[in-house]
Amino acid sequence: MAMRWSGRKLVLAIGGSMISFTIFLCLLNSISFSCHCEEKEVREVLCCSDSRPIKKQQGEGELPQPTIYVITPTYKRMEQIPELTRLAQTLMHVPNLHWIVGDDTSEPNRHIVEYLSQTGIPHTYLLTPMPKQYRTRSKALPKGVANRNAGLKWLRKHATQGVVYFADDDNTYDIRIFEEIRRTKRVSAFPVGLVTSYGLSTPVVKNGSFFDWYDGWRGGRKFPVDMAGFAFSVPYLLQKPKAIMPYKAGFEEDGFLRSLQIDPKEVEFLADGCTKIYVWHTKTRPNKPSKKTILNTKYDGTNLRQLQKDMILEM
Amino acid sequence: MAMRWSGRKLVLAIGGSMISFTIFLCLLNSISFSCHCEEKEVREVLCCSDSRPIKKQQGEGELPQPTIYVITPTYKRMEQIPELTRLAQTLMHVPNLHWIVGDDTSEPNRHIVEYLSQTGIPHTYLLTPMPKQYRTRSKALPKGVANRNAGLKWLRKHATQGVVYFADDDNTYDIRIFEEIRRTKRVSAFPVGLVTSYGLSTPVVKNGSFFDWYDGWRGGRKFPVDMAGFAFSVPYLLQKPKAIMPYKAGFEEDGFLRSLQIDPKEVEFLADGCTKIYVWHTKTRPNKPSKKTILNTKYDGTNLRQLQKDMILEM
Repeated sequence: MAMRWSGRKLVLAIGGSMISFTIFLCLLNSISFSCHCEEKEVREVLCCSDSRPIKKQQGEGELPQPTIYVITPTYKRMEQIPELTRLAQTLMHVPNLHWIVGDDTSEPNRHIVEYLSQTGIPHTYLLTPMPKQYRTRSKALPKGVANRNAGLKWLRKHATQGVVYFADDDNTYDIRIFEEIRRTKRVSAFPVGLVTSYGLSTPVVKNGSFFDWYDGWRGGRKFPVDMAGFAFSVPYLLQKPKAIMPYKAGFEEDGFLRSLQIDPKEVEFLADGCTKIYVWHTKTRPNKPSKKTILNTKYDGTNLRQLQKDMILEM
Repeated sequence: MAMRWSGRKLVLAIGGSMISFTIFLCLLNSISFSCHCEEKEVREVLCCSDSRPIKKQQGEGELPQPTIYVITPTYKRMEQIPELTRLAQTLMHVPNLHWIVGDDTSEPNRHIVEYLSQTGIPHTYLLTPMPKQYRTRSKALPKGVANRNAGLKWLRKHATQGVVYFADDDNTYDIRIFEEIRRTKRVSAFPVGLVTSYGLSTPVVKNGSFFDWYDGWRGGRKFPVDMAGFAFSVPYLLQKPKAIMPYKAGFEEDGFLRSLQIDPKEVEFLADGCTKIYVWHTKTRPNKPSKKTILNTKYDGTNLRQLQKDMILEM
């Protein structure tokens, strides 16, 4: 399967083998998995599910709630499934949510596809490898940019209403943040804990109005904010067809918010006027690939032969 | 408020000020918080809640499900609330669960008490400081032992049925593990990912029977298992009145399982015969206390004055 990147345009060329693989997966998950993958769609989307066992019902007489589109970049590592598990179990509590998972890979990861399907969360799995020219740089990598931009591209094609939120898989989200961001009209912002030496990144609000930003690293940014500290509406995104995230490590948020052409004074302040912390920039310690002891022949015929299939062993 | 430790017996001497504080908290949380704190009970339990907004209903004709008692040791740090948030949002999915949170403190942490109350999870908050003689040791500290033993003591007094699980607040739990452990008759065991250089700790099962343990650190242990890799039933615990966790860093699991007087061959293997990983020993990177920049007088009259109340600042 080949995948090429031409400028800002993502071209996914997926061959017949992948379509077969997709159909196979859909069949595999036939109980709780409703696959909407058509041949054309498969070029960008591996699979999506609209079923959901833990769905909350809308009350009678209530207005329909705007859909929240959560865009999560992810990449293969020892902690990938546990991180997505924690995040999924948070998102399961949120009604009217669609999860866009952009995986930094050009080959679908069956572990992720299978895991996402069984969560029951309506989702879209995108293959979003970082372009080669950025991956080989020696300086800080612009991680998650290809993933988020692919999510935005998917939204421009498939959504007209709702709210978008960039939610990395290692952060911690109190479920209350989702009901806050759901009422975003254009661009909203709110505090994020455990960011930089200040331990906090937030708009500073005085008498209900924008006063300043509080963040331990300004770096000349117009928007010194964390990726998890803002949300924006789909209608507003659609009004800004050039809005995109730049491949510039440390300046992804600033570049994207500048491209949204919003003024800091126009930003909507959520979480009780930015007085509550409902999101934290937690970081998980990376583990090295596991030793190969599990391959010892003395374990033939035991449960370890099944378990090793789910593990990443050292090279 | 004084708190003394005498041998293995925890004596909580809580004065009138704490009772008043407890009543105040109960009033504060009157909407979703049902407080069962009587004066006598307050000696050991700060507060408990039996309300639960996201409660699943038992189906008609189904047998009542055994209660799962989750014992979670915790301690004050920058990541405490986010970690408990992630775990709470996992536990909210599990019906018939009672969460015993043992906090390594002799003063109630109002942030934790308030957070637990609003989750709606039935819970008990215990003050379980590590005894001084262990805290001042230069070698590895037996973390979480006072907390877990206090949880066991509480269970011996309040429970006759159900299943017990030690769930640290930084691990990752797929919700499927709870339905697995719920059927524990005496002692059950199952795989835990991301443990030691092997990346896995699990019983090795051959032809349905115990074959060996797989864990990167044996250390002469009879039970080389992770704290998150086993569960036990309340009736079995009650049959072993001397079962207790030793204050011996690295040997807590082994010592406790030995005190339960179970033979490895009698252990029940869960998670499809120990072929699935539903628990991971994830570790969160610690953050240093935050800089005091937030105290700058230029922020007077802003939202930062509310936010600083929830922060831990450097000394």
